[in-house]
Amino acid sequence: MRPSGRDLSEMRPISIETGVTRHAEGSCMIRVGDTHVLCTASIEDRVPPFIRNTGLGWVTAEYGMLPRATHTRGRREAKNGQSGRTQEIQRLIGRSLRAAIDRNALGERQIVIDCDVIQADGGTRCASIAGGWVALKLAVQKLMASGAITTDPLTDHVAAVSCGVYAGQMVLDLDYPEDSEAGVDGNFVMTGSGRLIEVQMSAEGATFTRDQMSGLLDLAEAGCAALVEAQKAAVA
Amino acid sequence: MRPSGRDLSEMRPISIETGVTRHAEGSCMIRVGDTHVLCTASIEDRVPPFIRNTGLGWVTAEYGMLPRATHTRGRREAKNGQSGRTQEIQRLIGRSLRAAIDRNALGERQIVIDCDVIQADGGTRCASIAGGWVALKLAVQKLMASGAITTDPLTDHVAAVSCGVYAGQMVLDLDYPEDSEAGVDGNFVMTGSGRLIEVQMSAEGATFTRDQMSGLLDLAEAGCAALVEAQKAAVA
Amino acid sequence: MRPSGRDLSEMRPISIETGVTRHAEGSCMIRVGDTHVLCTASIEDRVPPFIRNTGLGWVTAEYGMLPRATHTRGRREAKNGQSGRTQEIQRLIGRSLRAAIDRNALGERQIVIDCDVIQADGGTRCASIAGGWVALKLAVQKLMASGAITTDPLTDHVAAVSCGVYAGQMVLDLDYPEDSEAGVDGNFVMTGSGRLIEVQMSAEGATFTRDQMSGLLDLAEAGCAALVEAQKAAVA
Amino acid sequence: MRPSGRDLSEMRPISIETGVTRHAEGSCMIRVGDTHVLCTASIEDRVPPFIRNTGLGWVTAEYGMLPRATHTRGRREAKNGQSGRTQEIQRLIGRSLRAAIDRNALGERQIVIDCDVIQADGGTRCASIAGGWVALKLAVQKLMASGAITTDPLTDHVAAVSCGVYAGQMVLDLDYPEDSEAGVDGNFVMTGSGRLIEVQMSAEGATFTRDQMSGLLDLAEAGCAALVEAQKAAVA
Amino acid sequence: MRPSGRDLSEMRPISIETGVTRHAEGSCMIRVGDTHVLCTASIEDRVPPFIRNTGLGWVTAEYGMLPRATHTRGRREAKNGQSGRTQEIQRLIGRSLRAAIDRNALGERQIVIDCDVIQADGGTRCASIAGGWVALKLAVQKLMASGAITTDPLTDHVAAVSCGVYAGQMVLDLDYPEDSEAGVDGNFVMTGSGRLIEVQMSAEGATFTRDQMSGLLDLAEAGCAALVEAQKAAVA
Amino acid sequence: MRPSGRDLSEMRPISIETGVTRHAEGSCMIRVGDTHVLCTASIEDRVPPFIRNTGLGWVTAEYGMLPRATHTRGRREAKNGQSGRTQEIQRLIGRSLRAAIDRNALGERQIVIDCDVIQADGGTRCASIAGGWVALKLAVQKLMASGAITTDPLTDHVAAVSCGVYAGQMVLDLDYPEDSEAGVDGNFVMTGSGRLIEVQMSAEGATFTRDQMSGLLDLAEAGCAALVEAQKAAVA
Repeated sequence: MRPSGRDLSEMRPISIETGVTRHAEGSCMIRVGDTHVLCTASIEDRVPPFIRNTGLGWVTAEYGMLPRATHTRGRREAKNGQSGRTQEIQRLIGRSLRAAIDRNALGERQIVIDCDVIQADGGTRCASIAGGWVALKLAVQKLMASGAITTDPLTDHVAAVSCGVYAGQMVLDLDYPEDSEAGVDGNFVMTGSGRLIEVQMSAEGATFTRDQMSGLLDLAEAGCAALVEAQKAAVA
Repeated sequence: MRPSGRDLSEMRPISIETGVTRHAEGSCMIRVGDTHVLCTASIEDRVPPFIRNTGLGWVTAEYGMLPRATHTRGRREAKNGQSGRTQEIQRLIGRSLRAAIDRNALGERQIVIDCDVIQADGGTRCASIAGGWVALKLAVQKLMASGAITTDPLTDHVAAVSCGVYAGQMVLDLDYPEDSEAGVDGNFVMTGSGRLIEVQMSAEGATFTRDQMSGLLDLAEAGCAALVEAQKAAVA
Repeated sequence: MRPSGRDLSEMRPISIETGVTRHAEGSCMIRVGDTHVLCTASIEDRVPPFIRNTGLGWVTAEYGMLPRATHTRGRREAKNGQSGRTQEIQRLIGRSLRAAIDRNALGERQIVIDCDVIQADGGTRCASIAGGWVALKLAVQKLMASGAITTDPLTDHVAAVSCGVYAGQMVLDLDYPEDSEAGVDGNFVMTGSGRLIEVQMSAEGATFTRDQMSGLLDLAEAGCAALVEAQKAAVA
Repeated sequence: MRPSGRDLSEMRPISIETGVTRHAEGSCMIRVGDTHVLCTASIEDRVPPFIRNTGLGWVTAEYGMLPRATHTRGRREAKNGQSGRTQEIQRLIGRSLRAAIDRNALGERQIVIDCDVIQADGGTRCASIAGGWVALKLAVQKLMASGAITTDPLTDHVAAVSCGVYAGQMVLDLDYPEDSEAGVDGNFVMTGSGRLIEVQMSAEGATFTRDQMSGLLDLAEAGCAALVEAQKAAVA
Repeated sequence: MRPSGRDLSEMRPISIETGVTRHAEGSCMIRVGDTHVLCTASIEDRVPPFIRNTGLGWVTAEYGMLPRATHTRGRREAKNGQSGRTQEIQRLIGRSLRAAIDRNALGERQIVIDCDVIQADGGTRCASIAGGWVALKLAVQKLMASGAITTDPLTDHVAAVSCGVYAGQMVLDLDYPEDSEAGVDGNFVMTGSGRLIEVQMSAEGATFTRDQMSGLLDLAEAGCAALVEAQKAAVA
Repeated sequence: MRPSGRDLSEMRPISIETGVTRHAEGSCMIRVGDTHVLCTASIEDRVPPFIRNTGLGWVTAEYGMLPRATHTRGRREAKNGQSGRTQEIQRLIGRSLRAAIDRNALGERQIVIDCDVIQADGGTRCASIAGGWVALKLAVQKLMASGAITTDPLTDHVAAVSCGVYAGQMVLDLDYPEDSEAGVDGNFVMTGSGRLIEVQMSAEGATFTRDQMSGLLDLAEAGCAALVEAQKAAVA
C-alpha cells in the first residue's frame, strides 16, 4: 500500500561512498533510495566567539539544495538569507552531531559539515545527519592520524530517520510521495547505542496519540540501526 | 531543589488578561511566572498565494522580543531577516494553532497571530502558543458575532508547555535559570482533549531514554491541562 | 469641534507607570490618551567608535511599533532596514535626550533608550521622548546609587508635544484623527526650564505664517510643562 | 568673525545653470558657494500605488552624494539602504516641493527630482530644494509646451536656506566649517510669497530661546528671497 | 615544465556523463581533469518580462560552487547576493549558449542552465559552458521528442577553454596551479564550426602583444575542437 | 552610414577637464561625445586585507551612473547591491589601471578611482578607464610633490575604446544607437606603448571570425592612441 511497494517497516536501500571530493578533510555521498546528499567536513582553526580561548571544539553544519534537486527548480540560498526551513534543518544537523562529540578531546577547532542535496526524494535532513557523521568521522581520523589530537572525540554513532502516519498506517523512512501526504510525521535522531538525541513529531492539520508515538519510536530504532551498520562499513 | 523552590511538577502562576489593545480583533497579555507575552490576532482579507480561490482560510504567526525583554539587550528583528531561532518558533506557533482550525469553516481569510515578548523568563514559545490561542479565539468570536462566519472554526483548545531534565530530575515548565542549564528539554503542544500536536525533545551535548521521554509526557499533560483551564476562564 | 471634544489647548490625560519590566535598568509605560509607549533604558559599557577613549558618554534611542499597535497591521522593522520615518523618529529621540545630558558626568558608557509603541493614537514620538526621559532618569539614578557616577549627568527635564493647525484652528496634542487631517503640524521639544531643543514644523500640501508659528509655540510651552509635572511625579 | 569673512547675514554667491544634461526633462546645476548640486526632473507615467486612479499627480525626490563630494570618501547609497540622514533629506525635499504643486493640475503622473551632490560645503539639502524647484519648473514647462497639461501646476516658488548660532552669533547660510561647529542650526523652507513650508531647528548638546528662533527666521526670509530671485532669472 | 607534466598544447582528460539527476530535463557531470561541474537544464514556461508575448525563447544560466569545492571552504551564494566574479561567470555562460540558439524555434519558454562546481581545479567557467551545452541539448531533445517544438533550436555546438601565458610560455587549459600564477590569461568561447563567440583576454599586473593573442587563439581552437568531440559522443 | 555621420574609423570629440572637484586628490571630467564621466581619485592609508603589511599598494575602482544619465531613469546602486553589469565594469577599470602601476613604488596605500557617469551615450566604461587614468595620474603627482613617494609608480598610460560590427561594418567608438544594435562588440584596453591589457569581444546572438577580430584590433589601436594624446595634454 506504499507508493514504492515497500513494507511498512522497510528502509530504502542505503549506500555510502566515501572520499568523493579531493579538498575536504572528510567527504561522502550518501544515498537513501533516490535521496542523494554530498556531505563534506572542513576543519578550521578558528572557533565561534563564544568558545574562544576555552580549549573546547565546535561542530556546526550548513545545509543546501542544488537548484534542480527537486521536481521544480528552487532558488539558491546563502548564509543570512536562508529560509526558515533551511535554518531549522542545519541547526538540527549541528545539534545532533554535537551530541556525540567530546568537545574537550576535539580541542579548540571547528569542523563544519556541509550537506548539499544533489537529488531529493524525502528525508534529506535525516540522510544529511547520517552522512554528515561519516564525513565528520573521516575528518577526525585525519586529525588523529596527523597526531593533532590523541583521543577520539567521537563518542558514538549518530543516525536519523523519518517516520510518520501515512494513509492511516505507521511507516518508516518516508519518501517524497508519502511525505507530502502524511498529516503526522517526524524525525528521530539516535546514537549507535540506541539513546535518543532528538525527537521531532509534528502534525499539520491533524493530531496523534501517545500510542502512535510509541509505535513510531519502534520503527525509528530499527531504521537507525540499519543506518549505523552502513556507517560502520563505510568508515572501516 | 529547583532555583524557584517549585515542586518538580509545579507550573508557575498563569494569568491571561484579554482586550489589552484597542485595534486588534483579539488580544491578550499572558503571564506564566515572569514570562509575559502580548498576543494579538489580526483578521485580513487576503490569504497566501497557495490557497487563493480555494475557499480555505489560514492562520499564521509572527514572534518577536522587545529589545530589553531579556537580561542583556537584544536586537530587533524584521521579517526576512529573522534569526533561525525566531523562525523556528513562529513556524511552530502557526502550525500548532492550525491543528485546531477547520479551514473550511474559517473561509478564505487569514488570521495573523503576533506574539511579542515583553519580558522573558523561559518558555516564551509555549506561552505564545497558549496566549495566541486566546487571541485567535477572541477574533473568531468577533467574526461569528458579526455574522461573517456561522460555524466556529476552532475545533479545540491548543496549549503548550516545556519539560526537561534539570539536575538529573524531570521538571515541568522550565524557567530561564533551569532552561539554560538543562541538557535535555523540549516542548509539547497538546489539544484540550489531550491529543498531541507537536513533540520537540532535544538534547544539547547529551542524550535521553524512552523512559525519560514517557515521564516528560506525563508532566506535559498536566501542564497543558492547567493552561487550558486558564484559557477557558479568559474567554468565557 | 475637536473629534475628542477636547478644548483647543487641552492635553490628553497623561500617566507614567515606572518599573514595568524586570531586566531594564530603567523602564516606564507612558500613556498619553490612547497612545501607549513602553520605554526602557539599557546601560552598556561599550560606546560608539567615534567617542571611544574620550571619557565621554552617549545616549541613543531606538523606536519601534508592535505590528498591531495601529488600525491595520504593520510590519516589524529591524535595525538597518527601518523606514525613513522610523529613522527620523529615533534620531530625534536620541538628539533630544542628549541635549540635557552632561556627557562628561555620564562617563564613557552608553545608555540605549528603546521606545516600543504598544498602542498608537497620534503623538507617539512625543510620548517616546517624554517617557524615554523617565527611563533614562531611572537608569541614571541606579548608576548613582551604585556609586558608578557621582554627579548627576541629567541637567534638566526633556519633554515633547505635537501642535498643529486642524480645521483652521491651532490645537495642542493632536490625536490620530486630527493628525491625519492636519495640513500643518509639528513637534516641539523643550527642557524643564522652557528652553527649546527642537522645532519641527512641517506642511504637507499647505503653508503657514510666522504668526501661526508663534501661536503653536505658546500651546507647546503649556503642553510640555504638563508633561514635566508628570515626569516629576513619576521619578520622585 | 565667520571663517569665510562673510557678514552675519550674507549669503554665499548663488548660480543656477540650466539644461546641463541631455536626457532629463528638466535639469540644472545649482552652486551656492562651494556646494554644487546637480538636479534633474524625470517625468514618469506611473504613480505611487496610493494615488492610482485618483487623477492626482505626485512629486518625489531622491538625494545622493558622489563618493568624493566630501573631504573623506563616502560610500554610495542605494534606495532601501540609505542612511537615516539621506532619507530625512529626500523626504524633506519631496514634501517641500509638493507644498507648491496643484496635484490636480499636474494630472496622474509623477515627477522624480534627483539631487546629486557633486561637491559639498554645507547646506546641500537647501541647495537641493532650490535647485530641485528649477528642474521641476523646467519639466512642467515642457509638459505645458507639449499640451500634456494646460494649467501650470506650480503655484509658487520654493526655496530653502540654513541658519544657525555660530560662535554665539546668528548667521545665515552656514558653510561646512560653520555647520560642523554650530550647536544650534536649522533649515527654513519658504515660498516665493514668504510663507513657511517647513521649519527644522535643532540643537545638539545645546538649547535655544524663542528670541533666537525669531532672529533666525528674519535671516531666513532674506536668504530665501535671494534664492527666489536667482530661480526667476534661471527659468526666465 | 607545467606542474602537471602536460605538453603546452595538451588538454586535461575530458569526460561527460549524462542523465545524472532524476528531476532535470537535461543533466550531465562534466569532468575536465580535477574540475567537476554538475550541469542541469530546467525548462520553464515563464520567460523574462522583456520578451513576454514575443514568441521568442530565452536561455539563461546560474553558476555556483559547493562550499568545499575549493582548497579552503567558501561561502554559499544566493541570487541577488552573488559576488562580482560569480555574476560575470553566469552572464558569460548564458550569453555564450544563446549564441547558438534560434530563439524563434525555441518558442516562448525559458531554459535555465545551473552549473554547480562539485570540485574545482581551474577552468570552471569553461567546463560549465561545455557541460551546460550538453544539458541544454538534452533538454531540447526532450522538447522535440514530446512534440512541443518541431525545429531544433540549437544551431551549433558551444565550447570554451582557457589559455594563458604561464612561466613565459603559451599554454592550453590552465589548471589551478597555473591559473594562480599566470599574469595573462583568458577564455575563448567557440562554436562547433570554429567561429568565435567570446574572447576575454585579461592581464593582471602585466600586458601582452598581438602576436601572443594570435598564438593563444591557435591553442583555443584545438582545445574547443576536443571538447566538441566529447559533446558529440555524450549526446549521441 | 553611421547614425552620427562619422567615418567608420572616426572617434567622437574627446575633451578632458581636470581639477573639477575641490576635495579629491585628483579629478577630471572626461567627455567622449555625449558620454560624460566625472572621475575622482581618493588616496587612502588603509589597504585591502590581502596586502596588509606587504609594503605594496593597490588601485581599485567604483563605477556608478546618476539616475538620469540615461534615456529612462535608472536606480541608484550601492556597494554590495550592484548589478552584475556594474560589478563587471568596475572590476575591469581597476584591473586595467593596475596593469600600469608599480605597486612597490606606490607604497602601502590605496587609491580609489570613482567614475560617475553624468551623461551616457555608449562607451561609458571606456571613458571611465581613460578618465580614471588621468585622475590617478594627478593623485600620483600630488603624492610625489609632497615627497610621500619618490619614484613615479605609473609606468605607462592606459586607455580604452569600444569597437564592434554595426550593420555589417567594423566601426570604432560606438555610441548608444550603434551599441544597442551591434551583435558583436567589445572593449580594448591598451597602454601608451600599444601593448594589450584587456580584450573583451562578445557576441549576443551572433558570432565572429578571426579576421574580424584582427580588423577591430586595428581600429582600437588608433582610438587608444587618440585618447592617450588627450591624456598627455590634460596632465601636462
